[in-house]
Amino acid sequence: MKNYLSVTDIDSLPSWVDEAIELKKHPKAHKGLGENKTIVLLFFNNSLRTRLSTQKAALNLGMEVIVMNFGSEGWTLEFTDGTVMDQGKSEHVKEAAQVVSQYCDVIGIRAFANLQDKEADEAELVINGFKKHATVPILNMESSVGHPLQALADAITLAENNNKSKPKVVLSWAPHPKALPHAVANSFVEMMHLQDVDFVITHPKGYELNSKITKGATIEHDQNKALENADFVYVKNWSSYQIYGQILHQDKNWTMTLDKLGTAKFMHCLPVRRNVIVADAVLDSNQSLVIEQANNRTFAAQIALKKILENL
Amino acid sequence: MKNYLSVTDIDSLPSWVDEAIELKKHPKAHKGLGENKTIVLLFFNNSLRTRLSTQKAALNLGMEVIVMNFGSEGWTLEFTDGTVMDQGKSEHVKEAAQVVSQYCDVIGIRAFANLQDKEADEAELVINGFKKHATVPILNMESSVGHPLQALADAITLAENNNKSKPKVVLSWAPHPKALPHAVANSFVEMMHLQDVDFVITHPKGYELNSKITKGATIEHDQNKALENADFVYVKNWSSYQIYGQILHQDKNWTMTLDKLGTAKFMHCLPVRRNVIVADAVLDSNQSLVIEQANNRTFAAQIALKKILENL
Amino acid sequence: MKNYLSVTDIDSLPSWVDEAIELKKHPKAHKGLGENKTIVLLFFNNSLRTRLSTQKAALNLGMEVIVMNFGSEGWTLEFTDGTVMDQGKSEHVKEAAQVVSQYCDVIGIRAFANLQDKEADEAELVINGFKKHATVPILNMESSVGHPLQALADAITLAENNNKSKPKVVLSWAPHPKALPHAVANSFVEMMHLQDVDFVITHPKGYELNSKITKGATIEHDQNKALENADFVYVKNWSSYQIYGQILHQDKNWTMTLDKLGTAKFMHCLPVRRNVIVADAVLDSNQSLVIEQANNRTFAAQIALKKILENL
Repeated sequence: MKNYLSVTDIDSLPSWVDEAIELKKHPKAHKGLGENKTIVLLFFNNSLRTRLSTQKAALNLGMEVIVMNFGSEGWTLEFTDGTVMDQGKSEHVKEAAQVVSQYCDVIGIRAFANLQDKEADEAELVINGFKKHATVPILNMESSVGHPLQALADAITLAENNNKSKPKVVLSWAPHPKALPHAVANSFVEMMHLQDVDFVITHPKGYELNSKITKGATIEHDQNKALENADFVYVKNWSSYQIYGQILHQDKNWTMTLDKLGTAKFMHCLPVRRNVIVADAVLDSNQSLVIEQANNRTFAAQIALKKILENL
Repeated sequence: MKNYLSVTDIDSLPSWVDEAIELKKHPKAHKGLGENKTIVLLFFNNSLRTRLSTQKAALNLGMEVIVMNFGSEGWTLEFTDGTVMDQGKSEHVKEAAQVVSQYCDVIGIRAFANLQDKEADEAELVINGFKKHATVPILNMESSVGHPLQALADAITLAENNNKSKPKVVLSWAPHPKALPHAVANSFVEMMHLQDVDFVITHPKGYELNSKITKGATIEHDQNKALENADFVYVKNWSSYQIYGQILHQDKNWTMTLDKLGTAKFMHCLPVRRNVIVADAVLDSNQSLVIEQANNRTFAAQIALKKILENL
Repeated sequence: MKNYLSVTDIDSLPSWVDEAIELKKHPKAHKGLGENKTIVLLFFNNSLRTRLSTQKAALNLGMEVIVMNFGSEGWTLEFTDGTVMDQGKSEHVKEAAQVVSQYCDVIGIRAFANLQDKEADEAELVINGFKKHATVPILNMESSVGHPLQALADAITLAENNNKSKPKVVLSWAPHPKALPHAVANSFVEMMHLQDVDFVITHPKGYELNSKITKGATIEHDQNKALENADFVYVKNWSSYQIYGQILHQDKNWTMTLDKLGTAKFMHCLPVRRNVIVADAVLDSNQSLVIEQANNRTFAAQIALKKILENL
């Protein structure tokens, strides 16, 4: 594998998950693999879990880690070819990507959707700009349209907590006061396509995700019906995709409660707004898997980096 | 020892000080102790000495170090239980503390008093929030009401420079143009309670520190009288505690001078405003211990981390 | 060598260049040299190449690296002696430099010209303040008037690409929408003084560099004439030195094109504004050396650090 940009870069999900669970038991077992190898992590947006867990994963593999907040510490990037750069942008991604490649063996990038311009977001200017011009592998630490390290951590968490041959997994929208990107939801849907699960997406009308991604998935607008007999309920807010980046409403009836959850396990990528996305009682119950999901971020990053290092 | 949150977490001050002085001679002697152990340093406020010396101490012990400016790089934290998080706060400390604990073996936290709300500051929302929910030890890198790493560095510096059985130590207030927290003064007073010293606090009326902390200490409002026969003079500004966080006045008669200092040694935690807190002539004389105090920050952090690591 | 502050700190350029090219072949060959040694990199300004390549160089030498954005993470520094520090500055460079020296073996500093006050810029308050008060060697990561790591990377790049006994090297001004410092141009001129080259500087009238630095160099105001038979063309913008820090004009006739470049190699320190400083066609041709120059930043930093470490 050259890059880890999307869930579709996983060649064999079961073996990745098994290997990640093995890494979790012996995190330092492959410390020699990254010796004298350097990863540069470029953050164009804020981060807690991704920032810490990816560093931890790289250190577990014996890599040298260099972290840079590109926005505040570097130069503003231009992404369009042929531009006369006489305005605010100081450096073209053509140079930046080639240059950074020379200082490391892997580049991690986080660059969120800005939710202003659907076409620009879907073009994934930052991560695709680096992918095109870099000469080393790229690790996606959340881009405009996907968060494949989160989805991989989710898959590991599902594997650890599932005891059915074909569990029912529900992805449920929840209200949120700020417009949020679709990346986590998109990658989770893509991940469910790779699993033998009974998968249902539920959200109010108007909050349909990109139909190219949800194609083949069951969509049920009645949340209660969707949740019937669920084994795992993944709750997440996203803004409208059709009326791009808008909050249509914040219907509190969609907040997850213990009552709605039944006996299912609760999942969320964090950070989570308590009593908006989900009631305290759910997060504080032993049905919540959110802390374990966050823990598995380390091993998701570690297995992805391990695969990259093995193919250098 | 689980945490190092306060001077009172020191089980035996003489042995800590002796061991720190030994570490200073051989900083890398215990490099194996921190092998494959990670410390995450979370800064909610600016820092020079604490930032560099704590990293250095952890590296001396062979630890992996991850630094994060929580305010600018992460998410805004909620600390109150039961809140409906539909305003500006993105993540609850309940999740943040549990999550960060999974990526490391020790968490260092710096979170200053905001000096707006005495009750909130004394509740130590950040450090107590992490203490309550974290599953790994916490190292206090200056909280609202204490700076125990500074006080430990001060104790080391005193031990290195004292040749009397019971030296006279004076803590003297000095003027400053900005309202400053009480943390350094509080921890220094607590540290003096643990020492066999003749301890006097001097400040203008109205600048009384928290009486629960100064209980038992001599308070003398006449600075000249307080300084008589002093062996060590620790100068520090703090804002009013009674009229919380206010600057009552900036009386320049309280600025420390060579004349007032006599033959005593001068101490300050730094950063120090020259010719406001203390005259150039004092800082540039060989009576000043401030550079050595800053140096001892490394070994204060290193002995505290060593004790934490030995008890993991 | 104690410090690397200027090109003039290089004792023997040919041996430095040869050794750097050797380091490029075997970057980790001297990993033992920096063992248990720490470098602190203090950034007072933004940086991409310098930030990453200096870290990489130090890691290649086995050093521990601590990075700090002094402006946003630390305290505002005072540089003038005798000041009553009752305004915005919290700490004097006297203390800061002595203190930081105690936490590391080498200090790297980046502090740009502010272009407001020629005298202040030429006094190099930050780097000279640290040089005066620090007790460990200082590495210049670009100061007000010089960028000797860039000039050293340029010398390495020239050596790798030159096959003439005395090549013609042209430094050509180019337009830019923002007022830029003179540091890169200054250090490149100083570096050319150390080389056996036919060196010509070309710029519009009014953009003369400091004559103390250009003394002895040929200055030709006709760009076309200057470029005749050039082997290497180094293009760079700088603001006026006489009317200090001003943009006199942004004459687009000075933009470098393939036509003007002829068969010469193109050099620039990056970041570069495409189609303002230089046409896309030049940067995208195989005559461009800019990516290799950026690569050589690692080995310039590494040879400078190696020399410093060998003299500790």
